[in-house]
Amino acid sequence: MATTARRTPDDLVRTPAALAALVPRLRRICGEDGVLTDLSQRRTYESDGLTRHRSTPGVVAMPTTTAQVRDVISLCAEHGVPYVPRGAGTGLSAGALPHAEGVLLVTSRMRRILEIDPENECAVVEPGVANLDITRAAEPYGYHYAPDPSSQQVCSVGGNVAENSGGAHCLKYGFTAGHVRGLEIVTPSGEVVELGGKAPGAHGYDLLGAFVGSEGTLGVATRVTVSLTRSPQRTVTLLSAFTSLDAGGEAVGAIIAAGVLPSAVEMMDALAVEAAEAAVACDYPAGAEAVLVVELDGPAAEVDAQVRRVTELCAASGSFGTRTASGAEERALIWKGRKSAFAAVGRISPAYIVQDGVVPRTALAEMLGRIASLSAESGIRVANVFHAGDGNLHPLVLFDDAEPGAAERAEEVSGAILDLCIEHGGSITGEHGVGVDKACKMPRMYDDTSLETFDLFRRAFDPEGIANPDKLLPTPRLCGERPEVRTGVHPLVASGDAEQF
Amino acid sequence: MATTARRTPDDLVRTPAALAALVPRLRRICGEDGVLTDLSQRRTYESDGLTRHRSTPGVVAMPTTTAQVRDVISLCAEHGVPYVPRGAGTGLSAGALPHAEGVLLVTSRMRRILEIDPENECAVVEPGVANLDITRAAEPYGYHYAPDPSSQQVCSVGGNVAENSGGAHCLKYGFTAGHVRGLEIVTPSGEVVELGGKAPGAHGYDLLGAFVGSEGTLGVATRVTVSLTRSPQRTVTLLSAFTSLDAGGEAVGAIIAAGVLPSAVEMMDALAVEAAEAAVACDYPAGAEAVLVVELDGPAAEVDAQVRRVTELCAASGSFGTRTASGAEERALIWKGRKSAFAAVGRISPAYIVQDGVVPRTALAEMLGRIASLSAESGIRVANVFHAGDGNLHPLVLFDDAEPGAAERAEEVSGAILDLCIEHGGSITGEHGVGVDKACKMPRMYDDTSLETFDLFRRAFDPEGIANPDKLLPTPRLCGERPEVRTGVHPLVASGDAEQF
Repeated sequence: MATTARRTPDDLVRTPAALAALVPRLRRICGEDGVLTDLSQRRTYESDGLTRHRSTPGVVAMPTTTAQVRDVISLCAEHGVPYVPRGAGTGLSAGALPHAEGVLLVTSRMRRILEIDPENECAVVEPGVANLDITRAAEPYGYHYAPDPSSQQVCSVGGNVAENSGGAHCLKYGFTAGHVRGLEIVTPSGEVVELGGKAPGAHGYDLLGAFVGSEGTLGVATRVTVSLTRSPQRTVTLLSAFTSLDAGGEAVGAIIAAGVLPSAVEMMDALAVEAAEAAVACDYPAGAEAVLVVELDGPAAEVDAQVRRVTELCAASGSFGTRTASGAEERALIWKGRKSAFAAVGRISPAYIVQDGVVPRTALAEMLGRIASLSAESGIRVANVFHAGDGNLHPLVLFDDAEPGAAERAEEVSGAILDLCIEHGGSITGEHGVGVDKACKMPRMYDDTSLETFDLFRRAFDPEGIANPDKLLPTPRLCGERPEVRTGVHPLVASGDAEQF
Repeated sequence: MATTARRTPDDLVRTPAALAALVPRLRRICGEDGVLTDLSQRRTYESDGLTRHRSTPGVVAMPTTTAQVRDVISLCAEHGVPYVPRGAGTGLSAGALPHAEGVLLVTSRMRRILEIDPENECAVVEPGVANLDITRAAEPYGYHYAPDPSSQQVCSVGGNVAENSGGAHCLKYGFTAGHVRGLEIVTPSGEVVELGGKAPGAHGYDLLGAFVGSEGTLGVATRVTVSLTRSPQRTVTLLSAFTSLDAGGEAVGAIIAAGVLPSAVEMMDALAVEAAEAAVACDYPAGAEAVLVVELDGPAAEVDAQVRRVTELCAASGSFGTRTASGAEERALIWKGRKSAFAAVGRISPAYIVQDGVVPRTALAEMLGRIASLSAESGIRVANVFHAGDGNLHPLVLFDDAEPGAAERAEEVSGAILDLCIEHGGSITGEHGVGVDKACKMPRMYDDTSLETFDLFRRAFDPEGIANPDKLLPTPRLCGERPEVRTGVHPLVASGDAEQF
């Protein structure tokens, strides 16, 4: 690791001219086609999935090998130039927001599946591989890669590692961290380090676990060994409607209390259902104030028994319109409404903010009541779509960007929801990460001692502060003296990718 | 965190006199009965479960609250005095080996179960609570604490966290790290930090994960929030015998390949079975070259189907003497032989070394062949008892401590087995930790860059090097210039605790 003295951000190269001087060396490392300097090309990288934060990268480097990643980062370290790693750019916390005077290190050309090892139930892949491509490669052996962000068709495994991504099925199968066995990383000082490996086992510090979710601040993963999960014998999806959110929440509580562990428990409120119907005509039961989607998987005999039990428990909470599906197509039909919900909100509102927070599952009902009150008081509509099983909320805060001050009021409601999450013993992000977006919220979660501990850890890896600066932890530059400074709020546009969230 | 310059170990207080000066202050912190200075009392703490490493602590402090732990550690930090945390002392890697000029910080008086929260499926406990006591407290609610080291009746949760302990059922349920949701810790500079909490969710660095398994080098856990696991509807234990280790290994491979995930898959070879029979008359099938114990748990319908499948697969590999048990008493009878195996070896050998290594499961057969060759070449008998499902070997290297040079030869064989583990893509410890015992082996697992990264991480938390020095990472003092220096090898005595391992 580098032992040079820590530089403050102001010491970093700030002028495009100084950065331009590095371009020939970057080209020698990544090849002519591996470096982008044209403004029009660089602009395509100006945001990740959270488009209200934008910044055009100084230069874009697209290495194809670990050695190239090492050389790019070593060059940055040598010149004190900041760099930002980026996978597919589907993140929702501006964790891959480029640095205007830095290098954007894009891993999209590192997309080889190096090995599918069914005997040891794992796969070894490059960081640019799309999440779903692992499952596609493993399926012939009866396996799949369990963590399933809704963007799984395009999001990269490297990005999943950086953000410790979740997904609808993480209720049963857990987050990315539980599925990464080994990593090859390049540290911010340009050294290649192996963490973990194919064999399970505990020895030394679990820096593997700490690296997952570190949002690129500790280095770049250049090779990822993930566990493969045996595909279940049977999967059944159940849809149930309720006359109130409370009744739906009661059913969720009863299911968990009965010892049934579904692979997914998703809930949508009336406004989210309305949006989904408008967009994809998903044919959810009319008059539903809450719709519950429960998926059960495992051995056929067990799943069948569980479906009966879940149906009974939903009925006991006053469900109606319950239907089940076990074929892939029928199941996709039930999921269609849920998966389209975020993008569909664009049909009923010109703009919206997607929030991500988490509360202990038992605080869900109380939390939804508080959100409803917030919405009523502010006159800002909030649609709720959430992973009910693990208390992970995704409130959609709707506003009209043509109305002066509406974006700011929506931001306020959105921030107040996070405060409520903290107040209820939860946290400011369930699965989307901290990034730039929530870095200034971290002091609401952690006291100074904890934040200093985080910073100490970060600086041990990145003494110069060049690895994805301004992400994850609050900085004076980013947050100023006020508890929170909002970066320019751009009107949000509903994403065209219906499966983005 | 402290920002004082890093002291080298030689700067530390080395004289009992200097340490003695701290005693009055320790007494003010922990009370008169919370500090032990008498040699006879201190001697009872001279080793953990790995009795060949011994060192009498300079002084023993037994705090009862977080504030007392903080004050003891702050005092150590202020005076540069090393301290070693200790739970119940059942560890097997000399991870709690006391420091002769330091404070032994014993958590055994912090043993309150603070909360059982069945709704959120978790418990909050103090570090000195015995592992099994969590299960006892959770059972009335239909839950248990899943990680189950064989020493679970006595080993402490704090020690489990420090060592990231495993157990027979970790095949299905995972190690301690997968069950710790939150920690209150005191860092080596005496600051109280919260890591994680009751709600799942990912934000900031997962220092929680890195703390678990850090062997006390990053601080002392003073409060632990663990997940509770719903107790299965049915549990069935199956015993099968084979005419060769290969046939047993083949059965294990077939079970895993069939997609069955038992909660435990344990194997014993003929020598281990012989020892168990001599000690507890467990009535395992005569003529067995390998005995397999498979436990299946879950919903009754699923378990019954799995038992049939496992029985068929064992038969296909030539099993004999297969029997199953579902009642608690009958199951205990099957487990009796396995659980007594380690201690039982004392019946057939005056002394032995318990080794702990891990290989990818698919390398097990090859590995057992190599161990057999090693044994034949050296004339040193090796009994094999292992967690076959996850490739975690516990070879028992037998020797006669009355025979000159025998202990050294046994150590050589024991070390050679670890080298074979590394050679086969595995690691030097599966579940017992690194401690003092294997610190000098770490360079065989990790290159210099990785070890420097570990050291950098450790120093970020412990700039003065006072927290459990000489454990986990190699130091010149411990390992000298040679790749490995053995600390005084004492003859081993079979433990009286049949469930120790």
